[in-house]
Amino acid sequence: MAGPNPGGRRRNIATSINRLDQQIQFILEIDKLKSVLRRTTLINEARRENSAEHSWHIALMAVLLIEHANQAIDLPRVVKMLLIHDIVEIDAGDTFAYSGVSKIDQSAKERIAAERLFSLLPDDQAVELRALWEEFEAMQTPEANFANAVDRLMPVLHNYHNGGGTWRESIVTLEKVITRVSPIGEGSAALWEFTQTILADAVNRGLITR
Amino acid sequence: MAGPNPGGRRRNIATSINRLDQQIQFILEIDKLKSVLRRTTLINEARRENSAEHSWHIALMAVLLIEHANQAIDLPRVVKMLLIHDIVEIDAGDTFAYSGVSKIDQSAKERIAAERLFSLLPDDQAVELRALWEEFEAMQTPEANFANAVDRLMPVLHNYHNGGGTWRESIVTLEKVITRVSPIGEGSAALWEFTQTILADAVNRGLITR
Repeated sequence: MAGPNPGGRRRNIATSINRLDQQIQFILEIDKLKSVLRRTTLINEARRENSAEHSWHIALMAVLLIEHANQAIDLPRVVKMLLIHDIVEIDAGDTFAYSGVSKIDQSAKERIAAERLFSLLPDDQAVELRALWEEFEAMQTPEANFANAVDRLMPVLHNYHNGGGTWRESIVTLEKVITRVSPIGEGSAALWEFTQTILADAVNRGLITR
Repeated sequence: MAGPNPGGRRRNIATSINRLDQQIQFILEIDKLKSVLRRTTLINEARRENSAEHSWHIALMAVLLIEHANQAIDLPRVVKMLLIHDIVEIDAGDTFAYSGVSKIDQSAKERIAAERLFSLLPDDQAVELRALWEEFEAMQTPEANFANAVDRLMPVLHNYHNGGGTWRESIVTLEKVITRVSPIGEGSAALWEFTQTILADAVNRGLITR
């Protein structure tokens, strides 16, 4: 992963075995993301969604919706970012977007988690993935903006198609929903317009408290 | 997705809205992949794994292990392939690798599923994703070979770390396991060597019947 296309590169055998062992340890460790539950429920089943299947869903969503990005962006970079964006939840847990949990406390926990988890990997990959995660969190690049846009649009779709889902469960106001989802526009004006249409209809149907 | 980097392209507004509606319908539909259960159980939890979280896991696995591919390959193409490789299971169901289900029957069901599911998308995307799925199934390109390698390695890791998992549950013989996983070598000689070491140890520990 040091370059975009390093397949077939030769390393000496001892280094190679050691790298593969580290990579496999990381791959086994992240199986735990399948046990981190989000607040959202599935569309066709009452159970809560986990962060691993959510990551799959939005990675594929990014692939499909890339044409709606505000500017030309590096799709593979967005997809990698989305595949790893929630990994820190293995240690830090998922935080419900509308909970009262302090963002500073959660962010500190996530940093410790990132330190432990990414350092299971060979150094170059640890650095690359850690940087991608930081980039996602900082929302300062076109790729991070688009990745955050799909990450925030997905729960809107889930709630809208689940009779209000977590909006109703927690009596979230329209103002709070808009604060949470308005960064969608930074990644995609088209998706933000689409989101606003859904939200207006959700308010009309009483799924969101005005 | 018609080109590698189409972000920001302009289409006329009506076409654009129609495309987005089709894309969102597909995105909602594939939520169902989270309800398709595989035979494998998670490493740290007794429940069975679903095909959506499995797809996330192996897409990230491909990102991490690409350096072990037999030749230089197009990673973004492999990742896309893995994100969609199991979608047909929404209609066709998952087939246990060691079941007696006829491969011809299953393949016919999957083709019908592919027809229905991919055609929810705008034509260009339907064609692209369908072709990627066919490519994965055919295992004739370096990308498909590597994608299949990680797809086949993952259950080996799961079973090995689950006290034998489905190997023991269904009393699968070493010969059958080898027939199933030997294509790993077509994608990566290094991963195949690694797999053989695991299998030898699994036999020694009585996790696989000789």
